[in-house]
Amino acid sequence: MTIKRAAALTRLRQLMVQAGLQAYLVPSNDPHQSEYVPQHWAAREWLSGFTGSAGILVITADFAGLWTDARYFLQAEQELAGTAFSVQHRLSTNQPEQITWLTTHLPPGATVGVDGALFSVKQTRFLEKQLLEHGLELDTQQDLIAKIWDERPALPQAPIWELDIFFAGKTRREKLSDIRDNVRQAGATHYLVSALDDVAWTLNLRGQDVGNTPVFVAYLVIGLQQCWLFVDAAKIPQALLSALAADDIRIQPYDVIAGFLAQLASESRVLIDPVTTSSWLAEQLQHTSILEQTDPIQALKSIKNPTEIYHFRRVMCKDAVALVQTLHWLEQALDREEPITEYTLAQQLTQYRAAQADYVCNSFDTIAGYNANGAIVHYRPQKDTAAVLQRSGLLLLDSGGHYLDGTTDITRTIALGPPSAEQQKHFTLVLKGMIALSVAQFPAGTLGVQLDVLTRIPLWQAGLNYSHGAGHGVGFCLSVHEKPQGFVPDAKSIRGYTPLQAGTVSSNEPGYYRTGHYGIRIENLLLCVEAAPQESGAFLQFDTLTLFPFDRQLIQVALLTPDEKNWINDYHAQVFSSVSPFLDAAEQAWLAAQCAPL
Amino acid sequence: MTIKRAAALTRLRQLMVQAGLQAYLVPSNDPHQSEYVPQHWAAREWLSGFTGSAGILVITADFAGLWTDARYFLQAEQELAGTAFSVQHRLSTNQPEQITWLTTHLPPGATVGVDGALFSVKQTRFLEKQLLEHGLELDTQQDLIAKIWDERPALPQAPIWELDIFFAGKTRREKLSDIRDNVRQAGATHYLVSALDDVAWTLNLRGQDVGNTPVFVAYLVIGLQQCWLFVDAAKIPQALLSALAADDIRIQPYDVIAGFLAQLASESRVLIDPVTTSSWLAEQLQHTSILEQTDPIQALKSIKNPTEIYHFRRVMCKDAVALVQTLHWLEQALDREEPITEYTLAQQLTQYRAAQADYVCNSFDTIAGYNANGAIVHYRPQKDTAAVLQRSGLLLLDSGGHYLDGTTDITRTIALGPPSAEQQKHFTLVLKGMIALSVAQFPAGTLGVQLDVLTRIPLWQAGLNYSHGAGHGVGFCLSVHEKPQGFVPDAKSIRGYTPLQAGTVSSNEPGYYRTGHYGIRIENLLLCVEAAPQESGAFLQFDTLTLFPFDRQLIQVALLTPDEKNWINDYHAQVFSSVSPFLDAAEQAWLAAQCAPL
Repeated sequence: MTIKRAAALTRLRQLMVQAGLQAYLVPSNDPHQSEYVPQHWAAREWLSGFTGSAGILVITADFAGLWTDARYFLQAEQELAGTAFSVQHRLSTNQPEQITWLTTHLPPGATVGVDGALFSVKQTRFLEKQLLEHGLELDTQQDLIAKIWDERPALPQAPIWELDIFFAGKTRREKLSDIRDNVRQAGATHYLVSALDDVAWTLNLRGQDVGNTPVFVAYLVIGLQQCWLFVDAAKIPQALLSALAADDIRIQPYDVIAGFLAQLASESRVLIDPVTTSSWLAEQLQHTSILEQTDPIQALKSIKNPTEIYHFRRVMCKDAVALVQTLHWLEQALDREEPITEYTLAQQLTQYRAAQADYVCNSFDTIAGYNANGAIVHYRPQKDTAAVLQRSGLLLLDSGGHYLDGTTDITRTIALGPPSAEQQKHFTLVLKGMIALSVAQFPAGTLGVQLDVLTRIPLWQAGLNYSHGAGHGVGFCLSVHEKPQGFVPDAKSIRGYTPLQAGTVSSNEPGYYRTGHYGIRIENLLLCVEAAPQESGAFLQFDTLTLFPFDRQLIQVALLTPDEKNWINDYHAQVFSSVSPFLDAAEQAWLAAQCAPL
Repeated sequence: MTIKRAAALTRLRQLMVQAGLQAYLVPSNDPHQSEYVPQHWAAREWLSGFTGSAGILVITADFAGLWTDARYFLQAEQELAGTAFSVQHRLSTNQPEQITWLTTHLPPGATVGVDGALFSVKQTRFLEKQLLEHGLELDTQQDLIAKIWDERPALPQAPIWELDIFFAGKTRREKLSDIRDNVRQAGATHYLVSALDDVAWTLNLRGQDVGNTPVFVAYLVIGLQQCWLFVDAAKIPQALLSALAADDIRIQPYDVIAGFLAQLASESRVLIDPVTTSSWLAEQLQHTSILEQTDPIQALKSIKNPTEIYHFRRVMCKDAVALVQTLHWLEQALDREEPITEYTLAQQLTQYRAAQADYVCNSFDTIAGYNANGAIVHYRPQKDTAAVLQRSGLLLLDSGGHYLDGTTDITRTIALGPPSAEQQKHFTLVLKGMIALSVAQFPAGTLGVQLDVLTRIPLWQAGLNYSHGAGHGVGFCLSVHEKPQGFVPDAKSIRGYTPLQAGTVSSNEPGYYRTGHYGIRIENLLLCVEAAPQESGAFLQFDTLTLFPFDRQLIQVALLTPDEKNWINDYHAQVFSSVSPFLDAAEQAWLAAQCAPL
């Protein structure tokens, strides 16, 4: 494999010479700016061997490097050992260091090549500006990978299916009508949809082209009267094809999108989102008027309709049952001294989830982090290296599922043996932050960056903090990390500057991580709802959707205010009454003990 | 006067026809984007009669309108009655409605004229983009006002003076050296400084060209070796001229700035801040390379040096003495049933401040708002209409001074008679928010938009809110509203996305306003300082600088946590021990009663 990789790199450098390029970039992206990328586009992994989710290759005549972030420094060193690629550390979140490397190492007048299909309009613009300021050029027409990747995986072929209106709550005709109102209001005649979850949501279709998110590879062009879906029609069952035809959705082959856009009438005004649209597709629209705007489907999709909300509330019970069964099973297995690892625990949890009605798949790879592994925020247990669980220490368990009736994402931190007073203190501070956001009442228009801080104050006052956002939007049987809203400490990111709106579902997941020792995170999903009218205008608040107790052993009651203690007791009572009807007697007894008043 | 105004408008419209303009805009700005504008540039007021601080005129052949915000709707209606100008309501903070008016009322191909000296690069760019999208053009070369304003006030002639190094703490040579490091780092050869407080801070000079801010009208161009000050040299005393010459500051007439810039060598790389630089000056630089960046002086100026901090702490005592004397005087005057108004109170306060050593001027017009007037956030009492104070109700008193040793800004809300339980509740909720920010400990890098929310949580949970930011930066014997930092609920404004830094001084001033009844605001100044090293890295916290008690009659102790009550008692004890040595016996007794433990 390494010999093959070395040959591919040599061939790439030959093509760079022929194309007059002094540097070439291979990113992690696909043409849809997806979170999970089909193997067909995993060129960065194919060329370098690095399997992490984030990283970009920079290749020149005498240099080959991978820039990745701190999560992956160790893994990258291991995976790239013996290859031509060196690991470069990406430390800043604002200024990509690989661009700084290019501008300081390339001679003036040099040209950097990329495949414009893999860079968004916004990314390309930023890159080009930075290069230009240092006298360098960008050539976006260079898909060199296609010329050297001989055994490239095909595009995914998984069947596409329909999410029944019983779950979706709104027909595609209704959704298209709402979207077209936005398109008209923007003064556009067409809207090019590149984000896969936007395509799936609009058409009430789902797929399985990538893991963990039920989407399929496609583009959608929405005109004021017509609508074109660019997809491999072989993936769509005949009955569904007919249903789409009846709704005036015209199916076109996936690979004709560029030609289709190039042939649009020049008086067309085409709406694109520069964050999700590739510069390659934007180039096909140069003869038209391009209107750049944040994807209007994003906002429509984020506000769940009453049917989705109805199902979201119910799916939480099923998810809780799977978790009760898993932790009850774990307790018994540990009592029997069975050798349970983080990995087998995650597998067992998946089995219990999969046994629930209308389960589709996990919404992300389960994070089961025991003791020190719990402090690694993006830890995923691997079969061969997973830690064996003992009757001591802390277990951080973060998991979720997609069901036809919604998507879940829940984290609990569990003491497998008697916790230390310090662990209790840290857990309780995290819990106080999580409760503060859960009970918050706030004026309409309040932003994610304003609410994030509520989860941090108890930690800050103790000199502690955590380095991720407090929460993200959640899709309905779609991406578990859905935009635009969320809770983050960054004023300039979309989750930071987006106001919370009634109907949105977001996670609430503060944490605390003691490197080398343990990690604590507590996560519920929150539905944003209107509060009763207040003197100072419209206010919003949250309904907690998730139904699962917090580990009472880890709560230091003395650190709680009376209101916080009451909130926990009320919540536990609600959990028990909602979930227990679906449990057997032994599980009921287990849950009752967990939900006992503090 | 109205006849003169009508004639001026007619003449303006004739000039518009000659210049081929279908619309003309007259803004409130001066060429330095100042908060307070010298009368020389008060063209909007001269042409329309409207005296408010914010508003823009739009004039076409058959329309004349003033767009202003809700603070000024009533005042504008009164001042514009009988003129050709109609009052237009500016409601949105994002999209200026006058631009929408232009794009919907002007025919395609029409040209809008402005004087480019009065619009910043950023404002011009925004305006031009909006007009272009609707097929309209912008002409920035049209200073029509200069052609019609016959009795225009001259440029201010007030003398310029030096702020002694004893107060400034850093010589202008040292400051220029720091600034040049920034200029070099940006890859620039020159830095054009337009903001008047930046010019004053850099050179340790002060002036009195406008009210409330000790600045003078000038531009500064900082080269890597040389430095040119564009100012009327007649305003500078001979000794100071010599001192500036000794420091290699070359004086040029104010009005040669454009010609100077136009003659810079074409290989010059000139740093400008698009927010404070006029598009007129940027146009003079078209033959050079322009580097746009947020004004580096802004950040340097915001971090007070140890000398400034030493003085800031001391100036608070003097300011407190003036306030003790004022409120003690007020109490006695009311007891004697003297007819005290909001206006005479403000005058008395100014007298007491002016009696303190090294007083320069007030830092803004005193807000003394009695009962319903207190709910008008930008209320300023006028001699003829000021309310008479009684032995009942609430008084909101927001005032401040510039001294050679610093700048103050303090608000207290005072019960002139027994307050209602509701007033106490509202006051206590505001106080709880103010304390929460005062005692906050937060990681380095925390933004103003994150901290603003701390002041709101107690109000939000009661369904209340207030509509201004929680605080702004404060200059050292310079602008009382200094950028960049502050506490605001807006993620996209500079005060929102700027991280707090040790050494900055900011106000902390939450409020609550019951329209038609009363207003509550409590304001202290906070110095940001480093906290002790914490487990989760570098943390910051605040030292409260302001030294004045809160009205104990208005505090509902039952609503306070034990920590909050202790904080107030400790603060009051500190106020008494710091301020009482400077008071006479009667004043001491008054302050002791105010500072008694809760």
